[in-house]
Amino acid sequence: MSKPAVRDALERFVDERDWAQFHSPANLAKSIVIEAAELVECFQWSDEADLDRVRDELADVLTYCHLLAARLDVDPEQIVLDKLKRTDAKYPVDRSRGRSTKYDQL
Amino acid sequence: MSKPAVRDALERFVDERDWAQFHSPANLAKSIVIEAAELVECFQWSDEADLDRVRDELADVLTYCHLLAARLDVDPEQIVLDKLKRTDAKYPVDRSRGRSTKYDQL
Amino acid sequence: MSKPAVRDALERFVDERDWAQFHSPANLAKSIVIEAAELVECFQWSDEADLDRVRDELADVLTYCHLLAARLDVDPEQIVLDKLKRTDAKYPVDRSRGRSTKYDQL
Amino acid sequence: MSKPAVRDALERFVDERDWAQFHSPANLAKSIVIEAAELVECFQWSDEADLDRVRDELADVLTYCHLLAARLDVDPEQIVLDKLKRTDAKYPVDRSRGRSTKYDQL
Repeated sequence: MSKPAVRDALERFVDERDWAQFHSPANLAKSIVIEAAELVECFQWSDEADLDRVRDELADVLTYCHLLAARLDVDPEQIVLDKLKRTDAKYPVDRSRGRSTKYDQL
Repeated sequence: MSKPAVRDALERFVDERDWAQFHSPANLAKSIVIEAAELVECFQWSDEADLDRVRDELADVLTYCHLLAARLDVDPEQIVLDKLKRTDAKYPVDRSRGRSTKYDQL
Repeated sequence: MSKPAVRDALERFVDERDWAQFHSPANLAKSIVIEAAELVECFQWSDEADLDRVRDELADVLTYCHLLAARLDVDPEQIVLDKLKRTDAKYPVDRSRGRSTKYDQL
Repeated sequence: MSKPAVRDALERFVDERDWAQFHSPANLAKSIVIEAAELVECFQWSDEADLDRVRDELADVLTYCHLLAARLDVDPEQIVLDKLKRTDAKYPVDRSRGRSTKYDQL
């Protein structure tokens, strides 16, 4: 987490409530998929959605992602950059341009 | 996104492949739940997991979260802080301390 | 499960491999969401999908649903009928006709 | 669906509300993952859950599975049996007995 503000704010929030005991990596992973499905629910019957609600559900997904990153002691932005480097290699620009094909079928 | 490095790196990655056309909010929401479920898969049969794999799956969830935040034109850290303020009000410290009870049952 | 064939076939499959030990309700719930997300993956970038693949992923979701029903010792068709009765009451025909609005906003 | 009662009951429910228009395969897939995540929510902080609530959430997952099967015009029990035959081949009893290892790592 680059902005210490976020990591610190979440840590204080959790500490005040003594909730770290519930935040095992397994429980946080379940929490992330639960919130991710609420995000999908914004689009359940239509691709058009209330974007304020989308932003709120995205915030919930991100909150649990930050908590899991903190629990794993990794920087959430650094792991995105690290993964991007590998994804970059899996999807060569010339073969993937303008196509949503999965890398193993390129 | 606080580190311009992440937002810029993702934008370049997407632009080079002309993939913005696939990144509607609805498709990104589906992508987030797909990756979130792969994260849960690390814990499918046990709460103990290979933490390197967990970190990689978390990076995938975060990547799509960043893409959706960019698409919504919101700062992914700011929305976490904004939401935290409201969650803070929903879970008063004295009533929620040490309990995983949902706010509507506190 | 109405067709004893399905329940029996699944039970034999699991018994032969001594897998009941992994099939706690919690693990089966995780398995269901994992397979459900693979079903969504068929539609990740488009509402058009390879329907053979959709059928296969649906079969995976259903398989874990049957295993969970067996574990809870409930008939998977009966619980659908029971729930339908309650949903029927929550969505009165005259107010819900032709609308995808959620019951609490009808 | 082996019990015509279930298929018929669901069809009547949907017809009365003119909801078939919302039930594209893509929307039903999203609905399945949304309900599957609510099932996981029963186990968010503990492997012990209220089993009545689990049964209700399972019913919701199954309901959408039945609707998707009807939409694909496949028998939901037959596709489970068909898939089981293939899974059986992927997990030979002698190598998978008592192990939760994925087939590609056996």
